[in-house]
Amino acid sequence: MTISPRAPAGNLRVVGLGPGPEAWLTPEASAVLAEATDLIGYAPYLDRLPPRPGQTRHASDNRVELERARHALRLAEEGRRVAVASGGDPGVFAMAAAVFEAIDRGKPAWREIDIAICPGVSAMQAAAARVGAPLGHDFCAISLSDNLKPWAVVERRLNAAAIGDFVIALYNPASKARPHQIHDAFALLRRSKAPETPVIFARAIGRADEKITITTLAAAEPGLADMSTLVMIGSSETRLIARAGAQPFVYTPRDARASA
Amino acid sequence: MTISPRAPAGNLRVVGLGPGPEAWLTPEASAVLAEATDLIGYAPYLDRLPPRPGQTRHASDNRVELERARHALRLAEEGRRVAVASGGDPGVFAMAAAVFEAIDRGKPAWREIDIAICPGVSAMQAAAARVGAPLGHDFCAISLSDNLKPWAVVERRLNAAAIGDFVIALYNPASKARPHQIHDAFALLRRSKAPETPVIFARAIGRADEKITITTLAAAEPGLADMSTLVMIGSSETRLIARAGAQPFVYTPRDARASA
Repeated sequence: MTISPRAPAGNLRVVGLGPGPEAWLTPEASAVLAEATDLIGYAPYLDRLPPRPGQTRHASDNRVELERARHALRLAEEGRRVAVASGGDPGVFAMAAAVFEAIDRGKPAWREIDIAICPGVSAMQAAAARVGAPLGHDFCAISLSDNLKPWAVVERRLNAAAIGDFVIALYNPASKARPHQIHDAFALLRRSKAPETPVIFARAIGRADEKITITTLAAAEPGLADMSTLVMIGSSETRLIARAGAQPFVYTPRDARASA
Repeated sequence: MTISPRAPAGNLRVVGLGPGPEAWLTPEASAVLAEATDLIGYAPYLDRLPPRPGQTRHASDNRVELERARHALRLAEEGRRVAVASGGDPGVFAMAAAVFEAIDRGKPAWREIDIAICPGVSAMQAAAARVGAPLGHDFCAISLSDNLKPWAVVERRLNAAAIGDFVIALYNPASKARPHQIHDAFALLRRSKAPETPVIFARAIGRADEKITITTLAAAEPGLADMSTLVMIGSSETRLIARAGAQPFVYTPRDARASA
């Protein structure tokens, strides 16, 4: 009896880069990115990472998450140490779900791969930190993209979020292909939420072109949202603290009776 | 005319420690904690941090967030560099909202203090990373504690979360003083969600006594939840991937039509 040679033990890590700056990249993520033999990701995310000798980069377009995930799984199966770089937290509207979709639909051997998710600071957390504490109490996160779900599902969730009086974080609020989603979302929310509800547009947080706009639901201008923007809409409790010569703080009290 | 001496420029940073391990502590948080003259926080959080010469520690009980926040503001006003240590992400059910509440209700001079929030990995992100990608699509986060809000508000939000078919992350699901909340929450959700809906109990993630239980809404045992547990309840899309000899993966597809 001969023992067949085992394939080298590869692995796959789905790594959260956070919103941009290295100051928000966890030590776990840094270590995994340094030790990987192969980096896979959307090209602008890979561009953030310093080149390393012997490390292979596989940059891809933004629209091909599932194919990118399959590529990563094939490399790990061949014995490579693969890091899939994801913006923000890979578990929140990002690459981790795509990797598990690929495993679920893929060949059984992929379930045996050594795989782990390295969490990161997500866009809503960074945006919240910049303005105060708008996510200080019950909140929800909704992706406005209807590439992967019918708009009726988005409407159902926006209505439920209004009924529940959640603070709402909107991911993927608009793109060139979908300029009307955020307009329609504001129109829907205006039917049930107060006109003075605080609205925050947080664009490119942590990057050189960071821009924050604090306004109200009545005045919110859909054109302020693009692919790099996170939009937050307050609950009935969310409050502003005015400051002289500075952007107001925005926070949601922990105490749902505080403003009652 | 004499120029009155200015107070030294103090500042206040509300710092997310993440769920526990240093591998999840951001470089920003590490730097702020190292440079502070004063550390303020719930005693078990301060115990995680290495002692530093010349740094003063102000440990407090868990129940006094607002007093802790006022203490921090007074020290910053006196010119100290104050770091308020918060578990997870300070912006998510944690100390950042308490600090802004204290500012909102406090003296006007507190609005002029140099204040910033340093985000961190929150408990739900760490829990999600350990099991797969349950937060891969639209989700909400609800605190079950009724110390600070009427239980009717919690019920309203749980019902809305079920109507919207959100993945649900429950913070503060139970404590010795409130053993029934999580029992009542499961009972409420069982009225409208499928019995086979995946439920995850994630206890002490990243710590030595970490424990994960994956079950269903029908079988979920409320006694598994304590103060250190994060509970997640799937949407109708959330799926398990069975594995031989290992915990299944749990994920929520990005595509709301994938399982339709």
